[in-house]
Amino acid sequence: MAEEGARILVLGGGFAGMFAAKELHRRLRGRAVIELINEVNYFVFQPLLPEVAAGAISIRDAVSPLRRLLPGVRMRQAQIYDIDLARKVVVIFQGLQRRYTEVPYDHLVIALGQGVDLSRFPGLADHALPMKTLSDAMALRNHVIDKLEHADITSMAEVKRELLTFTVIGGGFSGVETAGEMKDMIDRALEFYPNIAPAEVRIIVIEFADRLLMELPPSLGEYARAFFEKRGIEVRLRTGIREATGTAIVTSDGEEIGTRTVVATIGNAPTPMVAKLALPNDRGRVRTDRCLRVEGQAEVWALGDAALIPLVDSPTAREHYAPPTAQFAVREARRLADNIGAVLDGKQPAPFVYTSKGALASLGGGRGVAEVFGVRLSGFPAWLLWRGYYLSFVPGFAAKVRIAVQWMLDLVLGRSTVQTGTSKARATRYVRYRAGDRVFEEGNRADGFYAVVEGAFELSILDPAGGATRRRIGPGGHFGERVLLGEGLRTGTVRAIEDSVVLMVGAEDFQRLTGALPPLRDYFDSYITATFRNEPP
Amino acid sequence: MAEEGARILVLGGGFAGMFAAKELHRRLRGRAVIELINEVNYFVFQPLLPEVAAGAISIRDAVSPLRRLLPGVRMRQAQIYDIDLARKVVVIFQGLQRRYTEVPYDHLVIALGQGVDLSRFPGLADHALPMKTLSDAMALRNHVIDKLEHADITSMAEVKRELLTFTVIGGGFSGVETAGEMKDMIDRALEFYPNIAPAEVRIIVIEFADRLLMELPPSLGEYARAFFEKRGIEVRLRTGIREATGTAIVTSDGEEIGTRTVVATIGNAPTPMVAKLALPNDRGRVRTDRCLRVEGQAEVWALGDAALIPLVDSPTAREHYAPPTAQFAVREARRLADNIGAVLDGKQPAPFVYTSKGALASLGGGRGVAEVFGVRLSGFPAWLLWRGYYLSFVPGFAAKVRIAVQWMLDLVLGRSTVQTGTSKARATRYVRYRAGDRVFEEGNRADGFYAVVEGAFELSILDPAGGATRRRIGPGGHFGERVLLGEGLRTGTVRAIEDSVVLMVGAEDFQRLTGALPPLRDYFDSYITATFRNEPP
Repeated sequence: MAEEGARILVLGGGFAGMFAAKELHRRLRGRAVIELINEVNYFVFQPLLPEVAAGAISIRDAVSPLRRLLPGVRMRQAQIYDIDLARKVVVIFQGLQRRYTEVPYDHLVIALGQGVDLSRFPGLADHALPMKTLSDAMALRNHVIDKLEHADITSMAEVKRELLTFTVIGGGFSGVETAGEMKDMIDRALEFYPNIAPAEVRIIVIEFADRLLMELPPSLGEYARAFFEKRGIEVRLRTGIREATGTAIVTSDGEEIGTRTVVATIGNAPTPMVAKLALPNDRGRVRTDRCLRVEGQAEVWALGDAALIPLVDSPTAREHYAPPTAQFAVREARRLADNIGAVLDGKQPAPFVYTSKGALASLGGGRGVAEVFGVRLSGFPAWLLWRGYYLSFVPGFAAKVRIAVQWMLDLVLGRSTVQTGTSKARATRYVRYRAGDRVFEEGNRADGFYAVVEGAFELSILDPAGGATRRRIGPGGHFGERVLLGEGLRTGTVRAIEDSVVLMVGAEDFQRLTGALPPLRDYFDSYITATFRNEPP
Repeated sequence: MAEEGARILVLGGGFAGMFAAKELHRRLRGRAVIELINEVNYFVFQPLLPEVAAGAISIRDAVSPLRRLLPGVRMRQAQIYDIDLARKVVVIFQGLQRRYTEVPYDHLVIALGQGVDLSRFPGLADHALPMKTLSDAMALRNHVIDKLEHADITSMAEVKRELLTFTVIGGGFSGVETAGEMKDMIDRALEFYPNIAPAEVRIIVIEFADRLLMELPPSLGEYARAFFEKRGIEVRLRTGIREATGTAIVTSDGEEIGTRTVVATIGNAPTPMVAKLALPNDRGRVRTDRCLRVEGQAEVWALGDAALIPLVDSPTAREHYAPPTAQFAVREARRLADNIGAVLDGKQPAPFVYTSKGALASLGGGRGVAEVFGVRLSGFPAWLLWRGYYLSFVPGFAAKVRIAVQWMLDLVLGRSTVQTGTSKARATRYVRYRAGDRVFEEGNRADGFYAVVEGAFELSILDPAGGATRRRIGPGGHFGERVLLGEGLRTGTVRAIEDSVVLMVGAEDFQRLTGALPPLRDYFDSYITATFRNEPP
């Protein structure tokens, strides 16, 4: 063991990891070196993300630099590449560095949280906006403002309907708070969009279970539903998602809802690193014993959303495990620090014991629901309690004051919800189309190149005689290249003739690629000559 | 003419366009329809961008929604595709829309500002960070924090030196304020980076002229230089830029400065639309008469940075034209509105007359320089004046209060400078290397595919016998594909053997492309088989 004592390495900087590092440092300072590895250098106060998306608090007040929160803890902003349990090292990439670094440990704490996997729902991963990270919240705000801007000036009724329909998949805490805050934000914004009538805006929450807020007692879920319907937010219960495209979702009932905004708050899944580890897990949560130690491992611990922690000796039901909430993560962190301390002293760790003190949710519009110490609250008192509760949780005095000041200014001055960028498409992205959907038509601007991954499309080009040349394009085929390599607007129309997926490459990137890679350019040149030989120039 | 009166179309939503629309609406309400087209739906308070980059004020307080600032003005968030002066229509694309929309006008106001063109300096466009837009300010902040994070943990002395060297090209207002604010931000952040000594950080301002702040009298430029040197900011005068790569810049003296941060505040150039227009222009600024009317056009007007406006009848020197400052733009907007009003009434427009009331610059660290009504100020009084002056300019009472509150909190609570995202590389980007630079080496992570655009590289692969296979790769050639199509770490080393440029494609995008485009995959498979046939597996 090194001079400085045991090396304790914490992976992850969310509630679980941040508080674990804090508690470990408090208990073991001088006896152990605590090091934390996280992909970003800040802690995100996740429950406030819907408020960030809605512009109710500013970005920088929902996040705090981990280094400031954790004085005395070593901090590495890095990507975790591998965990070698046998050699007791974590392999990471730091910064834009391309050579890996190995970080050894005596005790490892896994606090990597949960990831998102939407792959069960065709098209959802490609077309839905998640709500997990700070970037997600910012992207949602920019997206919603974009839709309002476009809806205000479009002259196409169907497009306007799609633009003004906002869907949220999932009716748990995150979905309900996002829908409520989005409603608030849009209501406040509408006065500046003279061509949008309030009645044209639809917000729809879709939940598979038979009520909202499964985390709370049924009466509060029902309160939330009734409150939402009163505010004009539609709630679809017992409804799943079958697929999503860029302009619609299809529910499990077969209903097609035209929309250009799909927020997905479902699909919790293990993070790729946890999934890859050879540790016992249950649907992606690492199984621990009651003392937070990973089953069968003497020096590996897990807590927070990444861990499945039994609260009783022989768990048989869901409620026999610690729920994945911030409240539990913070308590688990304390027990974890005590237990690692005990093990370092050659003593026995103790089981984690905690009972929830309650739960709260904001519904937007100054209303909330809460169950605290067994007492149920709803309406304005619950909302106020929610704000106070979360404020007490926000780490750092400066951030508390800033958020309180912002909330006050928000009430007094009105809100200035601005875009912080335009939403930029990736250079390549997968796009799903349903049979019959139009990809582009004659006269359109050439925005990209399309390679067919799944399904089939029909390209039709009108000829001067009034007829049309039609060609079917299936997987491995492509379209849209000709105009990008020439200039001008689309000369043909492409429609999906089956449910399909394409890989779309942005126009500029396609041009750079064909410019820099002569073999690729040659391929397209030959292809265009062979394919369009018989058509008018 | 339509029932509602003349259609006046303002292009651009910066100081010039925003104030032009405001003044036009104030004077001509009821007699004309004022419409403004801008690519983003907010007005950016550009002088505050360095403060946004440094986290001294929050993003949303440096921008205001145009719709809120301009009640009664029609607003379109759209990209301008073309201006047809003969038919008197502007052709635009709205939102993600692919079909264009034509907007007719009776009078057109060009207020498109200036663009940036760094193409005269090899590598600068690909490797420098601009400081023109809100996204630029956010990107700079994220970039600087990234460099600090990486510098804190790297064990390579040369890399650390590059990471901690921050260069600003241009010593005008924007360059000086950016350098000063960056210094402030880094000084405040260093306490959280235990492995970075203050003396390791270098900030360098490079200016081609013989002094800083050409916009101000020489004595104030000299004050700024002396103040910077006292604070440890290096100033290089009479120094140009020869080229830039991802790890260095080369100055006109031939000095190579290792750096991973190059902020470019030089290279003002016409925006693409102004460059394309068949209007008389002088280095990209549209020539107007003294009344702000474009030479030879009865219904086209121009103001702000996009316009070259004579202040006297026979201008012969630079100072005979209106300078491109916010102060002048605001005054030009008033004259413009009066003049269009006069023309609509069948009267004569009047010449624009205005004398600058002075100029101010912040140097960071609570110091500034100013010349106001002929009086020169420097130090803290000038800084305070600067803040007050700009605050008075910030549109909207709410934003004023918010900014004032933030500045106070900043003094009282300390600053929490956080990243608002990690800086993400584009899917395809051009990267410049100098002869001798290493692109990657054996054992590196495979981060992308490289197509050679200019110059030449040498790939060397060690063989088990201790020798090496070497291959020269020139324009049209490529490298880095093999590992991406297989798996694992780099097996060879690539160095530039001439000054070179490559197009780099990110690993994930390359894999998506080869996955979706069988002809491309086939090409690489054949290429790899033919090229690496004789090498050990």
